[in-house]
Amino acid sequence: MALSKIHSEDVSNARAECSTTLRPTVPELEALLHTPLPVLDHGFVRVVDYMGDDNSVVQAARVSYGKGTKKVSEDRSLIRYLMRHRHTTPFEMAEIKLHVKLPIFVARQWVRHRTASINEYSARYSVLDKEFYIPSEEQIAAQSSNNKQGRGEILSIEDARFVMHLLKDDAERNYSTYKKLINDPNDNDEYDSTRQSVARELARINLSLNTYTQWYWKTDLHNLLNFLQLRADGHAQYEIRVYAEAILEILKVWTPITYEAFCDYRMHSLTLSRMALEVLKRVLAGETVTEDSSGLTPREWAELDTSFALSRKNSNAS
Amino acid sequence: MALSKIHSEDVSNARAECSTTLRPTVPELEALLHTPLPVLDHGFVRVVDYMGDDNSVVQAARVSYGKGTKKVSEDRSLIRYLMRHRHTTPFEMAEIKLHVKLPIFVARQWVRHRTASINEYSARYSVLDKEFYIPSEEQIAAQSSNNKQGRGEILSIEDARFVMHLLKDDAERNYSTYKKLINDPNDNDEYDSTRQSVARELARINLSLNTYTQWYWKTDLHNLLNFLQLRADGHAQYEIRVYAEAILEILKVWTPITYEAFCDYRMHSLTLSRMALEVLKRVLAGETVTEDSSGLTPREWAELDTSFALSRKNSNAS
Amino acid sequence: MALSKIHSEDVSNARAECSTTLRPTVPELEALLHTPLPVLDHGFVRVVDYMGDDNSVVQAARVSYGKGTKKVSEDRSLIRYLMRHRHTTPFEMAEIKLHVKLPIFVARQWVRHRTASINEYSARYSVLDKEFYIPSEEQIAAQSSNNKQGRGEILSIEDARFVMHLLKDDAERNYSTYKKLINDPNDNDEYDSTRQSVARELARINLSLNTYTQWYWKTDLHNLLNFLQLRADGHAQYEIRVYAEAILEILKVWTPITYEAFCDYRMHSLTLSRMALEVLKRVLAGETVTEDSSGLTPREWAELDTSFALSRKNSNAS
Amino acid sequence: MALSKIHSEDVSNARAECSTTLRPTVPELEALLHTPLPVLDHGFVRVVDYMGDDNSVVQAARVSYGKGTKKVSEDRSLIRYLMRHRHTTPFEMAEIKLHVKLPIFVARQWVRHRTASINEYSARYSVLDKEFYIPSEEQIAAQSSNNKQGRGEILSIEDARFVMHLLKDDAERNYSTYKKLINDPNDNDEYDSTRQSVARELARINLSLNTYTQWYWKTDLHNLLNFLQLRADGHAQYEIRVYAEAILEILKVWTPITYEAFCDYRMHSLTLSRMALEVLKRVLAGETVTEDSSGLTPREWAELDTSFALSRKNSNAS
Repeated sequence: MALSKIHSEDVSNARAECSTTLRPTVPELEALLHTPLPVLDHGFVRVVDYMGDDNSVVQAARVSYGKGTKKVSEDRSLIRYLMRHRHTTPFEMAEIKLHVKLPIFVARQWVRHRTASINEYSARYSVLDKEFYIPSEEQIAAQSSNNKQGRGEILSIEDARFVMHLLKDDAERNYSTYKKLINDPNDNDEYDSTRQSVARELARINLSLNTYTQWYWKTDLHNLLNFLQLRADGHAQYEIRVYAEAILEILKVWTPITYEAFCDYRMHSLTLSRMALEVLKRVLAGETVTEDSSGLTPREWAELDTSFALSRKNSNAS
Repeated sequence: MALSKIHSEDVSNARAECSTTLRPTVPELEALLHTPLPVLDHGFVRVVDYMGDDNSVVQAARVSYGKGTKKVSEDRSLIRYLMRHRHTTPFEMAEIKLHVKLPIFVARQWVRHRTASINEYSARYSVLDKEFYIPSEEQIAAQSSNNKQGRGEILSIEDARFVMHLLKDDAERNYSTYKKLINDPNDNDEYDSTRQSVARELARINLSLNTYTQWYWKTDLHNLLNFLQLRADGHAQYEIRVYAEAILEILKVWTPITYEAFCDYRMHSLTLSRMALEVLKRVLAGETVTEDSSGLTPREWAELDTSFALSRKNSNAS
Repeated sequence: MALSKIHSEDVSNARAECSTTLRPTVPELEALLHTPLPVLDHGFVRVVDYMGDDNSVVQAARVSYGKGTKKVSEDRSLIRYLMRHRHTTPFEMAEIKLHVKLPIFVARQWVRHRTASINEYSARYSVLDKEFYIPSEEQIAAQSSNNKQGRGEILSIEDARFVMHLLKDDAERNYSTYKKLINDPNDNDEYDSTRQSVARELARINLSLNTYTQWYWKTDLHNLLNFLQLRADGHAQYEIRVYAEAILEILKVWTPITYEAFCDYRMHSLTLSRMALEVLKRVLAGETVTEDSSGLTPREWAELDTSFALSRKNSNAS
Repeated sequence: MALSKIHSEDVSNARAECSTTLRPTVPELEALLHTPLPVLDHGFVRVVDYMGDDNSVVQAARVSYGKGTKKVSEDRSLIRYLMRHRHTTPFEMAEIKLHVKLPIFVARQWVRHRTASINEYSARYSVLDKEFYIPSEEQIAAQSSNNKQGRGEILSIEDARFVMHLLKDDAERNYSTYKKLINDPNDNDEYDSTRQSVARELARINLSLNTYTQWYWKTDLHNLLNFLQLRADGHAQYEIRVYAEAILEILKVWTPITYEAFCDYRMHSLTLSRMALEVLKRVLAGETVTEDSSGLTPREWAELDTSFALSRKNSNAS
């Protein structure tokens, strides 16, 4: 694919130009700068540039909250304090720029995170490559069984293959029509000199939503965490979640203390509503609370029960 | 189409519920509230709610710039003054909410206007209707002749019909596959009891970019003007421009003074660069300036010439 | 005070102009529209305009999540579901505009909420009134010893009176110098014909941070909730908290279901970190967990203990 | 002053830590990194960090508009093309972080640029230094003569000195009261053991608006240009304009091609309204246009006349 070739050249060029700088620098992140991390069947994420590190968060917070000492152990405490109390502005002081290749339907979810800068490959000006996302058999089965509209049964291998076949067939036909519409005289295989070519901006409307696009995406650490919390979550669609997971790995390398605090105080935290808080207090005070006496909705009771095994506790108690 | 039916019911319900209010109200806009204005082959724009009017801009500006008198003639002057000097914050004080039905490739351009709120129909949860945009013969021809990649010739009617046929054929096949994947047991025509259904979030990736979606879109008057300046412009793709034009008509009804000022000071204004300004000064001081002596790039000279017929002027002078 | 006079006239005028509208309308909010609610010694909050209601949130969510039925009980469930799962975009679909009079040091905190529109009274163009905030005796407190940012014990009446006296004295002197600098010929009491007047934009720099300013502030319901969560919280400075509390009363009238859900799932919720969650699970499974065995920091243990009386529980258990 | 001391130490530390990086680096900007550039009597601007350069704009644009060749001459053309046609998103791809010390009344104007990240020194936690802005005699005179409320006469040196004296006197008294309220036991000179100290968050309300504060301010290149266009403009208040001018110097070093394009197409451009455009066309077509026959308002005629000497032209013509 043409794009991939350009990239690998870009990557070597970019990785060849080494400079000295007085800016905060993260050697571990430098090691993977510019290199694409593969995601899905044709996608990738690569870090193109960054600004700041864990210490940039600390530095900004110290402007606000006073200076104090500067040991690393205290930096860690400060970052964890900020994360825990949702003091978010210091996390805006670090920035990252990613080059991402992703299916259009994933891009449509991603773009809803508005506090970010984007430059996307434009199919008004350039011709898209013949690359589209086809889910694996396992993914088709897995997602369909989670599907609330589904009937709970898992797709058979035959059915999954049939689905893959249909998706591939349609995507190829759409792409072939797209090329037929563009009818590029420089493209010997496809060119038909008896027909005029159609504007690229119109031809592209025939492509399917699993076609790959790519963009530069730049955001600050705070908004990156918001993105990750939503998109690395189990409720996110698998195809965007794998991008979020790749970025989590980047985060771990870039700002390891922030990463750890984010996991502890946001990703793996649990928020108790006023009502759930009351129930837990009653249980801890020794009371036996059942779904009926909890005052919670069945769904909220079930979720609290899943976290704390309240039913078991009660049955133990009795 | 199912959606259209729901809408017409919604429209009558919404238009039946009349209330009294102490808020600023625009009777001319009330007259078209909730009613869809058709755009493209299946799309529409309709005003669902609004807040404020021309006077809200005036009121906010008067907080900042002092009180003065309150005659309508002075309101007009003040709004024009604000528009001319790009005092934009008072225009943020009015707000509008639109319900829009639009092809996905148009939505992809529209969503890049970040200072707005959006709730889009989700094909993760609901099934999309069988509606896709097929450009008219004239549009296919017109866009292709403007196309810088094109060869300047206009598509023949035969070629345009061939294009329409290809687009329609692919879109229908994609939709039919989509329904086959969803395999809804409540859909007698399509249901195949021997196959499991695929998750909606996966099935939708097979749809083409000309499929219609819909959303609620809410923004303030200032950001609406930014949207209109870019998207009602001749360089915008036809398919989003017709939406911008429909919204311009709404603007004219909602805030007529702002609309007029926007046309005079933004839509139909011309910005001269430092160099173009110098050229015009020289010409007006009686000097004969040619492309060579102008110091402008060929493209910039051509544009200035188009606006002011400098070449003619010079040839007159000689 | 000049400003107050203008306001009361504005209020009666605004409340006199009644229109009919097809927009969603909240009669309870109409009843208090335009009327200033007093805050602090000279400040106020008044609703100038609004767009939408609880149902606007529901309407937007239904576009995304499918249609369902429309009973009020289900609307309430849906709003609570959205609040609980942080599905925030539907809450952006309602908007409110407030006119607020507030001390400059409060405005400096308030303005950090960036997703809002502001038009502030400009002392570059107009002369500020002689109004400044002097805290009441009860509000004057010592620097808190445990909370670095907050207030500790209340000062003795004598000390508090001394503070009030100092603040009043300085503010009056600053204001008197301000008027002397402006040296307005239309102000008979102050005008000195032997001196030139100083630009208003310079004269104002002499005012103290407790001088009152005023602005129009417009935001959407989602961002309003973010403001309220931070500023109605016990850690917020008293002087901005009382504004947040006044706005909470407005919220309760405007969108009562959202208000209730906000209290239950955000204001009075508790977020457990990964570590705190582990501790609670262990305790509920019957284990005796002490500060030492908890793995929490002393501060985090203390907070968890405050919420759930873990120490008491353990001592009961033993 | 304590703050200044900390800074000079910070500066040497920061400038001592040199790293190698694969990121885009601007040696000319590295040379002034961390070093404060003085502004006003006690203020400064210093670059703390940056991301990207002119080439980052080019790189992002090439993702959108296709690849093309890569010569520097073409990079310049591309940046100028983007600036001229207001293709703003590629300019969001570079970022800068500044540490600024500035009077509070300047901070109040600055903070209205919302698309930026800020961490400000908090007087809730820390005690402010005794530093306030006192305008020079020349500034007091100059600003007052521009003052539309003034009587056009220039302040005498005596009057200006009187103003300086009043400002200085009040600021010192306010600061002295501030310290008296804080009543810090570690401050031997001021401490009064018979009185309780007042919470810092309250004591600070007595400070005047010319007191210095400081913050970290981070924004992208596009939003920086918006800031500069408004604040380096002749209509901006002198005290913020000098900060904008200092930042313009930084811009020139950081992104010289963008700087040049910004000057040519934005700072020194002129926007003609629809009506002014018509007038110029008529004049260039040989018609004699007067204020009366122009259809422009007196003010707009005067401005156009100032730019193009239309009156002279007409009198020449006759």
